[in-house]
Amino acid sequence: MKELHWIAVDWGTTHLRAWAMGADGRVLAEAQSDEGMGRLAREAFEGALLRLVDPWIAGRPAPVPVVAGGMVGARQGWVEAPYRAVPCPPVAPGTLVPAPVNDPRLAVGIVPGLMQAAPPDVMRGEEVQIAGALALAPDFDGAICLPGTHSKWAQLSAGEVVSFQTQMTGEMFALLSTQSVLRHGLADGWDEAAFDGGVAEGAARPERLLSHLFRIRAEGLLQGLPGAAARARLSGLLIGAEIASARPWWLGLPVLLIGAGPLTALYARALVAEGVTARALDATDCTLAGLMLAAGATIGVTE
Amino acid sequence: MKELHWIAVDWGTTHLRAWAMGADGRVLAEAQSDEGMGRLAREAFEGALLRLVDPWIAGRPAPVPVVAGGMVGARQGWVEAPYRAVPCPPVAPGTLVPAPVNDPRLAVGIVPGLMQAAPPDVMRGEEVQIAGALALAPDFDGAICLPGTHSKWAQLSAGEVVSFQTQMTGEMFALLSTQSVLRHGLADGWDEAAFDGGVAEGAARPERLLSHLFRIRAEGLLQGLPGAAARARLSGLLIGAEIASARPWWLGLPVLLIGAGPLTALYARALVAEGVTARALDATDCTLAGLMLAAGATIGVTE
Repeated sequence: MKELHWIAVDWGTTHLRAWAMGADGRVLAEAQSDEGMGRLAREAFEGALLRLVDPWIAGRPAPVPVVAGGMVGARQGWVEAPYRAVPCPPVAPGTLVPAPVNDPRLAVGIVPGLMQAAPPDVMRGEEVQIAGALALAPDFDGAICLPGTHSKWAQLSAGEVVSFQTQMTGEMFALLSTQSVLRHGLADGWDEAAFDGGVAEGAARPERLLSHLFRIRAEGLLQGLPGAAARARLSGLLIGAEIASARPWWLGLPVLLIGAGPLTALYARALVAEGVTARALDATDCTLAGLMLAAGATIGVTE
Repeated sequence: MKELHWIAVDWGTTHLRAWAMGADGRVLAEAQSDEGMGRLAREAFEGALLRLVDPWIAGRPAPVPVVAGGMVGARQGWVEAPYRAVPCPPVAPGTLVPAPVNDPRLAVGIVPGLMQAAPPDVMRGEEVQIAGALALAPDFDGAICLPGTHSKWAQLSAGEVVSFQTQMTGEMFALLSTQSVLRHGLADGWDEAAFDGGVAEGAARPERLLSHLFRIRAEGLLQGLPGAAARARLSGLLIGAEIASARPWWLGLPVLLIGAGPLTALYARALVAEGVTARALDATDCTLAGLMLAAGATIGVTE
């Protein structure tokens, strides 16, 4: 691939995505697999990457820069990329950590995650998206929310992540909807009014989450709460509780949402119920813009 | 077994326990198995019971009364025993629901659970223990807490359950400690100071549960929080959040705890941190006393 300047990689616990990038931030090709960090031993990362990018780098005489963000830099990843401490810019020049490779056509650098000493917190991957969001919305000051398995709320000021907080909302939804007693009363489908009711209940009394959850089961048994409504209510309860307990993070500030479509839409809807109109940015756009920043700052291949 | 007057049965989702009872509430024999309601089809209940009690009823000419409480009376159980609505006494005369049997030596009655219409809630099995607690502590008025997979808080007045609330604390601990990202940082063992710290944090800010939980992971990564301390902290966070959000249930009232040893001790310890000294009753004592009430009131075999 002649026009290839570098390769952008988003490498999480359960997924691997790669983009062949041109000179001007143009995406030439894209590939993905389920070879996430969670199922790879240290020596298996290079092979997993090559399975995606080999067609792009065939016949290259010199190493192609690869910039990767996410759990690939965890202690159990390809190589540990030590956390940078906030307050700091989400990505910064000269901080990529080189990963060991055998193939001379690859030069891999990993974006370090961020840590906060007190209260203790960590992120890996979201810092790339936050950097990208700042590139797409320059001079943004306020709160950034990244819904997901482990939702993040970050406070941004003058281009720096001042502080951040993680909530286990997404993982809790997955566990409760598939592994807990609540699964018996849940079904596919969606009920917007039930979601709104859950948000209202969760946000009004976030401290009652453990009893609100069981009420879903009780309403199923006593009042025949339909499965789709139960599922939407569970989602609303958790998101409502998250947003209410994150109030100090967004109160009086502009809010930017980064995430995949449907989940981000739910957060936007729940925030409106709290009187907040959030601007939403596409997660992939943010990831690519952030990786481009990381690549440009340290490898100098983008303009 | 000549002295056998009746058989007491505690039949939950995952366990089955039976006691051979004499005339005066004396326990003549005891047996248990893991044939809980969760793994039995409707037609398999009688056989599971007989595997335990057959030696006791060998050669009996007339049916032996069997009184069973717990999930055995659920819709998916042996026979559905419809909920009784609070406010009401925890068990009442004439409410046992007969289960269909083929063996002429058995006459099985199932104790109905309790329901609350608003807010919707249900219990099955705990009503037996509450009845037993009232038998062991006559004239008790106040709050009864039953720690467990689904913790119950009940308000008792003049021998009636006035209202009750379920919290998913125990199931949440099980899910989080074995299925969530937190499992990576947990190990066997216990750390009392970490438990106390978790209780204090959880009780002070129960609305922040979703972020407090992730902090356990972050402290493991950043500060090397030992696995035993992480496990104790998780338990403390959940129990602290439960007790704080149940404050309207116990504030200014005497509190009675019913439960298995170690878990009840943790709740007692956490309640002391909130300024409450709870009296504790053994769960099995309460179960037997409650089943005896149910049996005596309706079958008339105890004196």
